[in-house]
Amino acid sequence: MLVTYTDFGITGPYTGQLEAVLKRLAPGVTVVHLQADAPAFKPRAAGCLLRSLVGPFAPETVFVCVVDPGVGMDRDPIWVKAHGRRFVGPDNGLLAGVMRDDPQAEAHRIRWRPARLSNSFHGRDLFAPVAAALAMGEGVDSEAVCPSTLCGADWPREMAEVIYVDVYGNLVTGLSGDSVPLEARLLLGGREIAYRRVFGEAPVGELFWYVNSMGLVEVAVSEGSASRVLEMGIGAPLARADGFEQEVSA
Amino acid sequence: MLVTYTDFGITGPYTGQLEAVLKRLAPGVTVVHLQADAPAFKPRAAGCLLRSLVGPFAPETVFVCVVDPGVGMDRDPIWVKAHGRRFVGPDNGLLAGVMRDDPQAEAHRIRWRPARLSNSFHGRDLFAPVAAALAMGEGVDSEAVCPSTLCGADWPREMAEVIYVDVYGNLVTGLSGDSVPLEARLLLGGREIAYRRVFGEAPVGELFWYVNSMGLVEVAVSEGSASRVLEMGIGAPLARADGFEQEVSA
Amino acid sequence: MLVTYTDFGITGPYTGQLEAVLKRLAPGVTVVHLQADAPAFKPRAAGCLLRSLVGPFAPETVFVCVVDPGVGMDRDPIWVKAHGRRFVGPDNGLLAGVMRDDPQAEAHRIRWRPARLSNSFHGRDLFAPVAAALAMGEGVDSEAVCPSTLCGADWPREMAEVIYVDVYGNLVTGLSGDSVPLEARLLLGGREIAYRRVFGEAPVGELFWYVNSMGLVEVAVSEGSASRVLEMGIGAPLARADGFEQEVSA
Repeated sequence: MLVTYTDFGITGPYTGQLEAVLKRLAPGVTVVHLQADAPAFKPRAAGCLLRSLVGPFAPETVFVCVVDPGVGMDRDPIWVKAHGRRFVGPDNGLLAGVMRDDPQAEAHRIRWRPARLSNSFHGRDLFAPVAAALAMGEGVDSEAVCPSTLCGADWPREMAEVIYVDVYGNLVTGLSGDSVPLEARLLLGGREIAYRRVFGEAPVGELFWYVNSMGLVEVAVSEGSASRVLEMGIGAPLARADGFEQEVSA
Repeated sequence: MLVTYTDFGITGPYTGQLEAVLKRLAPGVTVVHLQADAPAFKPRAAGCLLRSLVGPFAPETVFVCVVDPGVGMDRDPIWVKAHGRRFVGPDNGLLAGVMRDDPQAEAHRIRWRPARLSNSFHGRDLFAPVAAALAMGEGVDSEAVCPSTLCGADWPREMAEVIYVDVYGNLVTGLSGDSVPLEARLLLGGREIAYRRVFGEAPVGELFWYVNSMGLVEVAVSEGSASRVLEMGIGAPLARADGFEQEVSA
Repeated sequence: MLVTYTDFGITGPYTGQLEAVLKRLAPGVTVVHLQADAPAFKPRAAGCLLRSLVGPFAPETVFVCVVDPGVGMDRDPIWVKAHGRRFVGPDNGLLAGVMRDDPQAEAHRIRWRPARLSNSFHGRDLFAPVAAALAMGEGVDSEAVCPSTLCGADWPREMAEVIYVDVYGNLVTGLSGDSVPLEARLLLGGREIAYRRVFGEAPVGELFWYVNSMGLVEVAVSEGSASRVLEMGIGAPLARADGFEQEVSA
């Protein structure tokens, strides 16, 4: 299976162009668009979200990951292997999260270049062909490097801030549900927020936090928009009424 | 063929996660995303729209249907068979519409539970695996129940209100085109609205109603947005200048 | 491969309904949604954008193209062959761009009609079945016509205006990058705009133009929205500080 995770947007021809390359070069391999609105310009938040999404995918999955504000500038294309799965993308920290906690993780700088490489669409021209080749079991001209030399290798595991706002205005944070006790009251946008197990347990209009289906802490309003109520978006910092920072350090 | 009909939104990872499960558990079965912006929080409107969409699909099609405001609360997962097709979803009325007019319709409460069931994403964790199993011809642990005991079994066939607003601001209603004579003038948002056969027959800017490609009455503005002109959305009630209600009763 | 290029919108059931028809009638043929937000109501802009997108697709590709404000009115359905690829759509100029520069281009008026043809969704009912038949190597009842008799046959090759606004607010123009020297300063919305090779070379917030991955001139703001900065959208005219019009004539 080939899985795409990008900030190309859900409109426009970009995801379709990527898919066309994957399906042409890897005939017979299933393609799934996991997400096309990963946090743009924010490789660290996008990488944190990506890490929370890959768990259910089988080891043979190859991910094409592109959140690449510096496309065309000086950053290397890489592919990495972590927890059995392979990921292709830019060396800007986006892939740092998925490599965490795997002592066997591998990293490779990609030396191969396509005959025609546009300045602005490496997803289509470079990352997709590499991912297709990996999915087909073909080799890719690349050089093994030490994972610790990659951008983002020293980033902490969790982010005490909003990393994604979904279509309903739910605020996904970079905190693992495991790291926050259910009795904790969170602070976001000046509001103190208590836990509910599911949407249905919160009165309509109530602001609450819960552990979402990716295992992340998410702030929501029952049948409403937390993003609108709090006027907060990606990057908004989260705290705990009784102190927090020490728990989310690397 | 596996078909998804959900309110998961077109952004975010949710539809992609659903698709990944379907393609993993039902390899070789075609997956089509019919709609990811079904009316949220509104199982009755969503079910009315669903009913208008299933006609062209072959009997072997299996639909995964999720509009489920109470996910995680007390409602049963079900699968039903109606007009030859199978549908998997929550017992909250969403599947009531597709069962109408089929005296042979079957209903089944699903007893099977996955090893890991998240609180908020039964579409991915429970409904998708069941749909994949049905599409693969596998059995699913479930219990046959009488269709008349399901939520929504007593809902009327049609809805004299707006049930969906499309990307152009066209207002789809829950009225079948068959039930409204072409000379009828409809009342919506205080405006009296006449019939046109197609968009091209209405002067630019004119408000009109027509029978859309799903067979439903739809209110539109030629090269404009009926939603914006009328400031109306899902739930807005529709009437007829010469009386209406009696015709749309069950 | 079957490729869709439409203005059906990314929400709603329309693209899914189209896909369902294609996958049912052309089993085993890969379907890719290239774009579902082609410029609505604007066959010429949509055709200009389409022409810039087809280059990477293999000759055996069949495109279903629908931007059809006059659906249900008096325009013929056609299929054309150009540069080896086949395209199915309305004869309203949408397919004029892809036929340019191919002296061997063929055009065919489609005589076949489905048993059931809705007034408003010829994409699903007529164009998709024809495209599926072509992709399966089946014949379609149609009549060869001279390409020069088609709508749009006399339209110029390039458009000195904005033809698409992407999700980031980048303004795609109908000018080929080849036709504008890099030292040119463009005029759009009263602003004089200089060239940058890539986003990363422009300071954050700067308005610039570059040659995008489709080969078209695009006006952008680094980590911002050119559409918002200029308050310009599709149709906004472009000029050159030192004169322009003569270069973009047919």
